[in-house]
Amino acid sequence: MNDVICTVDVILLTIKDGALHVALLKRDRDPYKDVLALPGGFVHVREDADAQAAALRVLKEKTGIDAPYLGQLATFSGPVRDPRGWSMSIAHYALVSHDVIAGAGHPDVALRSVDQLMNLPFDHQAIIDTAVARLRSKSQYSSLPCYLAGDTFTLPQLQRIYEALMGEPLNKVSFRRKMTEMGMLEAVEGQMEVGGAHRPAQLYRLKPALRAQLALLSRGL
Amino acid sequence: MNDVICTVDVILLTIKDGALHVALLKRDRDPYKDVLALPGGFVHVREDADAQAAALRVLKEKTGIDAPYLGQLATFSGPVRDPRGWSMSIAHYALVSHDVIAGAGHPDVALRSVDQLMNLPFDHQAIIDTAVARLRSKSQYSSLPCYLAGDTFTLPQLQRIYEALMGEPLNKVSFRRKMTEMGMLEAVEGQMEVGGAHRPAQLYRLKPALRAQLALLSRGL
Repeated sequence: MNDVICTVDVILLTIKDGALHVALLKRDRDPYKDVLALPGGFVHVREDADAQAAALRVLKEKTGIDAPYLGQLATFSGPVRDPRGWSMSIAHYALVSHDVIAGAGHPDVALRSVDQLMNLPFDHQAIIDTAVARLRSKSQYSSLPCYLAGDTFTLPQLQRIYEALMGEPLNKVSFRRKMTEMGMLEAVEGQMEVGGAHRPAQLYRLKPALRAQLALLSRGL
Repeated sequence: MNDVICTVDVILLTIKDGALHVALLKRDRDPYKDVLALPGGFVHVREDADAQAAALRVLKEKTGIDAPYLGQLATFSGPVRDPRGWSMSIAHYALVSHDVIAGAGHPDVALRSVDQLMNLPFDHQAIIDTAVARLRSKSQYSSLPCYLAGDTFTLPQLQRIYEALMGEPLNKVSFRRKMTEMGMLEAVEGQMEVGGAHRPAQLYRLKPALRAQLALLSRGL
């Protein structure tokens, strides 16, 4: 209508080896053919109910992954970010456990540490930087990091994820109090994780009502 | 390119009579001709450097106002929000003191309390609700409300604005400590506000470096 190229890009984030990683894919066409980039694609006006539906569709098509939580990050736009013309990308971020990416088994998905990215095409570096900053900031006062923890997890596992995102150690007692205050977790009855030198630890999961909606803390961690 | 109608809308917010108001304009064309709506317009690919530039241009053209602070809110999209077809609006919010709107003197700008809106076209009610929620949430840990206070203000005036946004009284001592912690204000030398039964109060303004960029609190108010 007004000659704007309308696309969506997905920043799919996960924790691997204790560090935040982003999923990249080799582009299958020009511009930047064969270069690692965020999974993205055009909005399909005959098919997509909105930009979020477009992002979920593109993610599924390109990586085989259904994201339980996908949020809008921001829209990046202008005449120079894409060599094809004035474009906008409505960027969305999704968080999954590493199991989900491994389970999808897509041979072309490459995980890269968000702190060691190089030579990304378009403005994908700026998009990823914005997503990481948003995630780190929201980690202080929401259940967002839980989506990185998988279906079930122990409290020490969850604390390590919060610590990886916030870049600092958290006090165990205060962390457990804040998790209780958010009221987002439920114990998985009878399920304990056994292993190592420690006594068995209770497994938890997100309450069903919070699997697609964030819980918030009125004051940060 | 892919038949998406690309527009920007601006949620221009101000405090009037102690309550948060939004600026609306009668639409000058169909759809919804003569109905009060957010100021908005198409992205102009030959003119606009990005969506934010488009929002600043549209706001200036439609209301005569230059907004010192304008931030991206979110992008609203889909096939049903605009009767003309699959559309997206990259919504931006701007905050100004009531003086700025009065000073621009645009005869068609109508200020409405955000809590008493009715019969808005498109999805403008949802866009405004999202903007108000964002502003109220960000007020807890940022300098954002200062943009509503005008060029200079006393600390009691600023506290009343924070209270209007957060919907609760704030402790005076704790409020002053948080403002000091944010390090965003400077005293205007020699300028005191005189009036009423109180002794003269020091006037403050935002530090120049923060007039277009937010200061943040690591922990909320």
